[in-house]
Amino acid sequence: MRQSRYFLKTSKTFSEDDKVVSAKLLKQGGFIQESVAGRYYFLPIGHKVQQRIMDIVKEEMDGVGAQEMVSPILHPVELWKETNRTNTTGFELMKVKDRRGSEFALGGTAEEMFVDLVRKYQLSYKDLPFHLYQFSPKFRDELRARGGLLRVREFIMKDGYSFHRNEEDFTKTYEEMKRVYSRIFMRMGLSTVIVEADNGYIGGEYCHEFVVESEIGESRYFTTKDGTYAAHEDVAKFKRNPANAGAEMFPFQIIDQPKWVETMDDNVKHYGKEKNNFLKNVVYKNRITGEIIIAVVTGDLEVNQSKLEHALTMVGQLESALDEDLAKLGTKHGYVHCWGHKGARYVGDIVLADARNLIGGQKEDATDSVNVNYGRDFTCELLADISAAKSGDIAEHGGALIEGRGIEVGNTFQLGFHYTHLMEGAVYRDEDGTEKPYYMGCYGIGIGRTMAALVEKFNDGKGILWPESVAPFQVHLLCIGETDEKLEKYADRVYELLSASGIDVLYDDRVKMSAGEKFFDADLIGLPYRVIVSGKTMAEEKIEVKKRSEKQGVLMNAETFIAQLGNK
Amino acid sequence: MRQSRYFLKTSKTFSEDDKVVSAKLLKQGGFIQESVAGRYYFLPIGHKVQQRIMDIVKEEMDGVGAQEMVSPILHPVELWKETNRTNTTGFELMKVKDRRGSEFALGGTAEEMFVDLVRKYQLSYKDLPFHLYQFSPKFRDELRARGGLLRVREFIMKDGYSFHRNEEDFTKTYEEMKRVYSRIFMRMGLSTVIVEADNGYIGGEYCHEFVVESEIGESRYFTTKDGTYAAHEDVAKFKRNPANAGAEMFPFQIIDQPKWVETMDDNVKHYGKEKNNFLKNVVYKNRITGEIIIAVVTGDLEVNQSKLEHALTMVGQLESALDEDLAKLGTKHGYVHCWGHKGARYVGDIVLADARNLIGGQKEDATDSVNVNYGRDFTCELLADISAAKSGDIAEHGGALIEGRGIEVGNTFQLGFHYTHLMEGAVYRDEDGTEKPYYMGCYGIGIGRTMAALVEKFNDGKGILWPESVAPFQVHLLCIGETDEKLEKYADRVYELLSASGIDVLYDDRVKMSAGEKFFDADLIGLPYRVIVSGKTMAEEKIEVKKRSEKQGVLMNAETFIAQLGNK
Repeated sequence: MRQSRYFLKTSKTFSEDDKVVSAKLLKQGGFIQESVAGRYYFLPIGHKVQQRIMDIVKEEMDGVGAQEMVSPILHPVELWKETNRTNTTGFELMKVKDRRGSEFALGGTAEEMFVDLVRKYQLSYKDLPFHLYQFSPKFRDELRARGGLLRVREFIMKDGYSFHRNEEDFTKTYEEMKRVYSRIFMRMGLSTVIVEADNGYIGGEYCHEFVVESEIGESRYFTTKDGTYAAHEDVAKFKRNPANAGAEMFPFQIIDQPKWVETMDDNVKHYGKEKNNFLKNVVYKNRITGEIIIAVVTGDLEVNQSKLEHALTMVGQLESALDEDLAKLGTKHGYVHCWGHKGARYVGDIVLADARNLIGGQKEDATDSVNVNYGRDFTCELLADISAAKSGDIAEHGGALIEGRGIEVGNTFQLGFHYTHLMEGAVYRDEDGTEKPYYMGCYGIGIGRTMAALVEKFNDGKGILWPESVAPFQVHLLCIGETDEKLEKYADRVYELLSASGIDVLYDDRVKMSAGEKFFDADLIGLPYRVIVSGKTMAEEKIEVKKRSEKQGVLMNAETFIAQLGNK
Repeated sequence: MRQSRYFLKTSKTFSEDDKVVSAKLLKQGGFIQESVAGRYYFLPIGHKVQQRIMDIVKEEMDGVGAQEMVSPILHPVELWKETNRTNTTGFELMKVKDRRGSEFALGGTAEEMFVDLVRKYQLSYKDLPFHLYQFSPKFRDELRARGGLLRVREFIMKDGYSFHRNEEDFTKTYEEMKRVYSRIFMRMGLSTVIVEADNGYIGGEYCHEFVVESEIGESRYFTTKDGTYAAHEDVAKFKRNPANAGAEMFPFQIIDQPKWVETMDDNVKHYGKEKNNFLKNVVYKNRITGEIIIAVVTGDLEVNQSKLEHALTMVGQLESALDEDLAKLGTKHGYVHCWGHKGARYVGDIVLADARNLIGGQKEDATDSVNVNYGRDFTCELLADISAAKSGDIAEHGGALIEGRGIEVGNTFQLGFHYTHLMEGAVYRDEDGTEKPYYMGCYGIGIGRTMAALVEKFNDGKGILWPESVAPFQVHLLCIGETDEKLEKYADRVYELLSASGIDVLYDDRVKMSAGEKFFDADLIGLPYRVIVSGKTMAEEKIEVKKRSEKQGVLMNAETFIAQLGNK
């Protein structure tokens, strides 16, 4: 492709708004352009990268027998109602009505669409298992778009759905998909950590995220040093450190407390005891029902909202209670009781079952309660794992948790019978003639976010370093020097020679442009090989070849270079 | 691909609802499945066909230097307001709001999006011309979906936009695109008629449709025998046949008329004159402004609504007036006057300029006017070409018009400065340093509709006959006969041999299925070659090869068949 004819507009500078290096480089390098926040054009060179990523995904998916197809983009909202997802997805779901009044969801994922398709057929056990997937635009009504392609409102997702006779058959596919996903990312040069994750509004019993380690990523997770455990913060399990575990219960007492004791730190100072001796309440509100939830933990713990939502089956429905919500309960921040607020639902962390003789729980202006024991002095509607893990906490099977951050590029979900039980007629006829629901899984890869992760991993101060497997072109050919017909012809010949050998070349044939400007663009765009043709190289009938990752170019014959590329 | 593992569900019967053969065969053959009316899943085999069509389109587009990219699917509605298209597209445009209140159009085409992209860059004359295109989902809020893929509410369109320094440069591209489009369709076996067409809400001065002749198509157009003229009914020009052209004007008179004279036929009978001697009014209402439009023609003509809308620059805004609208004018059907209805706008056909001494125009219960002459007795706000051509009418440059019907699979539009004038900043810097608007064109191909057109053209009583260029697989390999391990192994070997030679094979390896059922499916699905492996062919170490289009199969070695395919 001749650069002079290519719609590729790099810029010398980048927007100060872009703190995220991938956003900065992809925009500056002319790969993407923002339409409005969170919605991007993929320009020709950016589209090529996206296409190469999709090609790898397709090859690997097809390789294990998954079958590509396409579903409509507008999903009849009735289907989402069948599975109650119009509630659980909350505000993220965009809906649109047609002129006849039919309502549609702009799908964020397509479980219902695929089940609805499959249930239109009379399936027999012989048809199972199968795995259907698509590359299709997905929509998320994100409150805040962020970091270029890292968090957007519209993107291409590869989403796949597998259908099985039973859990055993599903498990085989699920494990296979983990290998396939790891291989897909590995082929692009990305190593991924597979972490247990929260399934959000997708449903099912377990799921995994594929995370590319990165400081800029939004996925926070924990691993152990020996690698036997890896889990997203929203599901990470850890051993509690209950105060006075197994100790005798002392008599419950209301005691005086100086007025200055208000915060957890004040308590620690006043009583001279560790934080785990104190009770702590965090108040939430269900934004659909208005219900108030009081989460009870000990002072050494923080509530993890996702865990709490799962414990209550209120996924995506909680928000922090406001002062006015507390006022309605007849209390205020710092003075919430662990029991007795009428109309509130109490949920406690599992630590409460083992801790003894806790302090707090019924704080008033000049008093507080001590020797408070769960079960004897108060109870919650349920005890569950609602607390956030932190670095240094001990994993359930031993080993200290180490915090990691990364970019979630893919995920896999066990769906089990979640959708098949909610959607009528989602059955197959088994060998014995009876109808049974099928067991399902689903599998997603965010194509644009993978592209962002690639740039996050492969860049230096000057620009991108695309791995060869996803580079938009293999070679950036630069014609350098005063415009002169002889040099131009020589460069054209090199271009044609390389192209004829099947090498995908971006040929910077722009005239009246300095070498510096061309080098700047080449580094920014980041193709794997930079080839220079100049008066000097022409004199020797050679070209100068430099890998993007290396400092020094090497003079060689064009034929030698072609042979080298061919032998890789 | 082993059919036993392929998500390909044919059916023995088809829905009586499907009158259109392509709808019937694509559904019955398991290529597509309806989600809700006008929105389709493309199942794996249907997706493959669509992909092959797109591959051909892409190859030809890239071949002339057009560059593929992708724009967001949700278009900020502000852009459509800049070009007034939120009005002109009428109800067809679907809109959606996000949680922050921003409104978006679900694009039917993407002119504004591409101009908005391009104007973000400082373009110089050296950047021009360029041509950007995408394959992207398009939405039309059609009142009635129809005929499977023929008229849908959601579909993949290849839409391209070209940007030029001036009209001369554009014209070269426009003519080139006509050749490219013809070649694209020809490569799929479709010959297309290129007809001048109406540009609807796209804007610009002229455009062309690429039409595949078909009785089932919705495009009605006219050609002349010598092929020098081809135009859609909405733009077809023809010579009028004005009554008494050039004759002396007789004095205007109001005369008695028997009460039974009501219709045009009554008039012809009563006066003994040809239809072109009578005035006729057709009343419309602008559904946005409520304005009443009275179109005046002669009795031999019918009003073409699209022509009328263009004449009034009210594209997509007119509808037939109702009885209640006429009542408001103080009149009723059959008694509308050619002049004098207050508040109504009068538009006359060009025939009025030449016709003389017409009858009608001021009909009352027992009277009518005669010797009515345009200019002397009444005038309209404008005279324009607002009448419908019909078979036998004479084209402007001579020759009788012949009516044709077909499926519109593509279209090309001159946009000129339409968008660049309406959208601020849509300029490039010319050689002389001044800013100038660029001159534009756009080019669309409906991928799904092309698929439908292919099936309309290539089918017989038993199923589809896919042309090789777009067939989802080249070969349908059928293992026929009692399941027996030896035969199965032989068939597997043939499958592997063909596949290893790079032939894309659908292998019907289903067991416990009769030869009849397999033949039925093979004819229905319609791959170019059917290869049978049975006990009989195995005995001779051969295969039976039959083209889908032929009746008789031929026994041959697998190697011979491979060589034959390779030599094509």
